[in-house]
Amino acid sequence: MTMPFDKGTFLLVDYTIKVKDEDRVIETTDAEIAKKANIYDENEVYEPRLVILGEGWLLKSLEDELMKMNEGEEKEIELPPEKAFGKRSPDNIKVYPARELIRRRVRPIVGTRVEIDGRIGIIRSVGSGRVVIDFNHPLAGKTLLCKIKAVKKIEDEMEKIKALIHRRAPKVDINKFDVSRENDVVVIKLPPEIRDAEGGRIFKYSLFRDITKYISGVRVVRFIEEYEVERKEEKAEEKVPKKPAKAKEEEKQEQA
Amino acid sequence: MTMPFDKGTFLLVDYTIKVKDEDRVIETTDAEIAKKANIYDENEVYEPRLVILGEGWLLKSLEDELMKMNEGEEKEIELPPEKAFGKRSPDNIKVYPARELIRRRVRPIVGTRVEIDGRIGIIRSVGSGRVVIDFNHPLAGKTLLCKIKAVKKIEDEMEKIKALIHRRAPKVDINKFDVSRENDVVVIKLPPEIRDAEGGRIFKYSLFRDITKYISGVRVVRFIEEYEVERKEEKAEEKVPKKPAKAKEEEKQEQA
Repeated sequence: MTMPFDKGTFLLVDYTIKVKDEDRVIETTDAEIAKKANIYDENEVYEPRLVILGEGWLLKSLEDELMKMNEGEEKEIELPPEKAFGKRSPDNIKVYPARELIRRRVRPIVGTRVEIDGRIGIIRSVGSGRVVIDFNHPLAGKTLLCKIKAVKKIEDEMEKIKALIHRRAPKVDINKFDVSRENDVVVIKLPPEIRDAEGGRIFKYSLFRDITKYISGVRVVRFIEEYEVERKEEKAEEKVPKKPAKAKEEEKQEQA
Repeated sequence: MTMPFDKGTFLLVDYTIKVKDEDRVIETTDAEIAKKANIYDENEVYEPRLVILGEGWLLKSLEDELMKMNEGEEKEIELPPEKAFGKRSPDNIKVYPARELIRRRVRPIVGTRVEIDGRIGIIRSVGSGRVVIDFNHPLAGKTLLCKIKAVKKIEDEMEKIKALIHRRAPKVDINKFDVSRENDVVVIKLPPEIRDAEGGRIFKYSLFRDITKYISGVRVVRFIEEYEVERKEEKAEEKVPKKPAKAKEEEKQEQA
């Protein structure tokens, strides 16, 4: 029997969250449940998700429950609105003159989601020049049913770093990253999948932020990207590094 | 007195190329000359340019002359059309029905540069439904006057690698790159200017190609990019690494 978790614990968590009254799944880490609920997204990776307790990556009330759980434990938790997305508030329902909305290029059609002054709302009714917009969170007033499992606590520092990397690149096999630490420097050799990806720069910067924030004593994150000439013994076609689209043009450099 | 240069020589070259009859400068490595000729480009760096002899980075006839020159020598060379951009050829002048051009979305206006089937031409005349397009190179038929100087031969291997880097990033101080070689691996630590630049991926791939092509025995180019937490003693504002535009959004990651 392990002790309940502290803030800052690296925890892999499985969960499924439903709207109680509608029996509607709104989020899940389980591919089968997502498919049955028709919310399966091919761009998602369905697997236990890294949560650092206290960071607010999950609803606070779920994090609070997780802190009291043990590794491997599963729980069903009912969250009333005030522990989920809040109660519905009449203050969040506003009436606008239709003319003003049109001036703001918002078409007054019932059921449309609109953004006004940075807030997202839904048009509830339109009549006699008055438009009612509901700015309550779509899940406000809903009671949620959450099935949550504290799958695994990550204790090893290198595993923590890898979990942070995996969170930023869930589609790439984590074993393709070569990770080491030397004093206050974490060294990450990136696989070609990341090296050649469009968003590589953002990936690296975000990961630098994550690692220096959550792994104590790290001051520098050093990324290594390597390009290698294919050896003649190997089949050339298979080993040619993926060429960025623009590189070809670059090569046709002409002068005078 | 040094010996004339071989193919493959890394040579820093200064040059100014004029159209003889028009006394018009078309390209130069000299900022003052570019300014006087009204072709100064702020995105250019005016300095001796790296040429690897035999690679066709300059007109072949200029490269041939350079091979016979000595380090530090300067020459004025007159290149007749056949040694420059070729003679004008009547075969490169084509007549099109105006209607066909319009179908291809080319507007038949005299003097317009157009691209047809991948060839660039200029519309010479328009009349009675017939449009004459000249596909000769704009410098075909011109005699060029070239002032060219073999400024410096680069012999040291590390200097050669740095010259290749500088050629791909002429605006960044080459001393900000930390370069070393270990057997068949060249290691390049990139300064923040390159690390944070949009075209970094193309830069790295192109440089990998250059270095493995022109520096013998190199099989791997390893790039190192480092992010560092600013030390508290330093002024935080000055040391914050430049954040890629999209990174901010990334951080606001929310779950359930």
